Amino acid sequence: MSIRIGIMGYGNLGRGVEYAVKGCPDMELAGVFTRRAPESLQTVSSAPVYAAEAALSMQDKIDVMILCGGSATDLPEQTPYYARYFNVVDSFDTHAKIPEHFADTDAAAKEGGKVALISAGWDPGMFSLNRLYAGAILPHGQSYTFWGKGVSQGHSDAIRRIPGVVDARQYTIPVPEALEAVRSGSCPELTTRQKHTRDCYVVAAEGADKEAIRQAIVTMPNYFVDYDTTVHFISMEEMRRDHSGIPHGGFVIHTGRTGKDGEHGHVIEYRLQLDSNPEFTSSVLVACARAVYRMEKEGQTGCKTLFDVPPAYLSPKSGEELRAEML
Amino acid sequence: MSIRIGIMGYGNLGRGVEYAVKGCPDMELAGVFTRRAPESLQTVSSAPVYAAEAALSMQDKIDVMILCGGSATDLPEQTPYYARYFNVVDSFDTHAKIPEHFADTDAAAKEGGKVALISAGWDPGMFSLNRLYAGAILPHGQSYTFWGKGVSQGHSDAIRRIPGVVDARQYTIPVPEALEAVRSGSCPELTTRQKHTRDCYVVAAEGADKEAIRQAIVTMPNYFVDYDTTVHFISMEEMRRDHSGIPHGGFVIHTGRTGKDGEHGHVIEYRLQLDSNPEFTSSVLVACARAVYRMEKEGQTGCKTLFDVPPAYLSPKSGEELRAEML
Repeated sequence: MSIRIGIMGYGNLGRGVEYAVKGCPDMELAGVFTRRAPESLQTVSSAPVYAAEAALSMQDKIDVMILCGGSATDLPEQTPYYARYFNVVDSFDTHAKIPEHFADTDAAAKEGGKVALISAGWDPGMFSLNRLYAGAILPHGQSYTFWGKGVSQGHSDAIRRIPGVVDARQYTIPVPEALEAVRSGSCPELTTRQKHTRDCYVVAAEGADKEAIRQAIVTMPNYFVDYDTTVHFISMEEMRRDHSGIPHGGFVIHTGRTGKDGEHGHVIEYRLQLDSNPEFTSSVLVACARAVYRMEKEGQTGCKTLFDVPPAYLSPKSGEELRAEML
Repeated sequence: MSIRIGIMGYGNLGRGVEYAVKGCPDMELAGVFTRRAPESLQTVSSAPVYAAEAALSMQDKIDVMILCGGSATDLPEQTPYYARYFNVVDSFDTHAKIPEHFADTDAAAKEGGKVALISAGWDPGMFSLNRLYAGAILPHGQSYTFWGKGVSQGHSDAIRRIPGVVDARQYTIPVPEALEAVRSGSCPELTTRQKHTRDCYVVAAEGADKEAIRQAIVTMPNYFVDYDTTVHFISMEEMRRDHSGIPHGGFVIHTGRTGKDGEHGHVIEYRLQLDSNPEFTSSVLVACARAVYRMEKEGQTGCKTLFDVPPAYLSPKSGEELRAEML
């Protein structure tokens, strides 16, 4: 029997979940739920579209609801709300608010007898897992996370709000020398500026003061002032041609020491290079939906993260197959 | 209360476990067990040494027994034997025989009401986990494993058996062009020869026929004939000075595609660079001992692998700490 998936919210992430579910023979898409007018929305796979309010009447048709809203305002409300009625998975990524989001969702899922898995994706998600594994194996060591090269949506939006800017794309790029220093095992103390640079591609309005725009960007508090930031002015045509993708990725590098007196050094490095940040995140969400389904069938309830999931639960293969083919 | 660890077998791996346990504040070393004369053996931490036969009388003093024997002859007997009496962890690494070893150990551990975790280390172990995670997230893709640069003990031994060879060290090295081809996402078909080269450092006896030794190495079936092999003759002094370490490592690279028509490519890369192959393996064994202890406390029994372990169980940190610090 297939795992029946519901998608709540149909932006980049929801569409990515739709693609990923299509590629999983053990799953089927039961429906897409939207706050927009359902008839205004055409899904790629012709899956049925329902109004978000219709979800609660479909509890017996959906095994796992994947929540594809944003972390700023959607998920803090939606995840605890739906965790009462469905097994749910979300990609909540506001790191500082994870403990609160976990507590809210845990209480709701336990009341409903459901399993909720929060903060799936790559960071939080696969990067978090790699920090945990590496730290558990080499406790006398240090983990470093670098992001990029990739598009930062929040920083791109911040540039777009500057007067005279028509469109903008911001890339976060790890500093190669910082990566090398970390890999060397020297456990360097690195400032914000030493770890990443920011590269901005901006389409300015005709007649706009480009130098004023550049100054507004590089001095912007929180977003840019602590980084070495480069601003490139390009045409709308170049923007469309060269910067329409949403690539991202990065590195988790952990170095640690073992031996009688720490005489041996080790480097554990995990790297992602993603053509599509939302589609990769969606693919993690879908694997987590499989795990959540199994955990609920086992009788578990409450809020989980990838830290709590036996890795085998993410795979459609049996224990025997995994041991024979992958161990 | 500390987790009380026993070490069965005191070679490179057992000593590595001793170092790793010393570095874990939540653990203590209850004893080292050996088939040699106990009084002949001096442990680094002055832990007590017992004859292997004394182990069974110490069941109430040991929470997890870490089995540090070899995969060829020790572990196939020891792991099922001790799994009846102790929670155990081993590093069984004969990939083809894992299903059989699992079945034997599972039956024994279930009879004894214990938890056994087999095939911990880096391959099998952390590399296996990365193959599983990557394949579950990006099922439309392919995983490649490369080993090295590192010392292959079995291949070094094979060279030492050639007449006229006094000492030898063999390094396995991934072919850079193969790594690049895999990272490109082209999913190349790679032959054995295209993936790795073998680099041999040999000390020849005085007057030995070096060309004959070289020929014997490069044409050796199974070990070398399918590889591009380079032989360097060096002095015993150079061997001691430059080749006394046991470094190893390698790469698991998975590429996969997502999107409506697979239009987006992704690369997941996990890399290890280890100064000491046995000490890193030992560090994984010790983290697994923590997980095994917790799984038994929960009421689980039987044989497990890293695929079955919720990652959080490997870490001494609490769920709250992990979510706040690492997620």
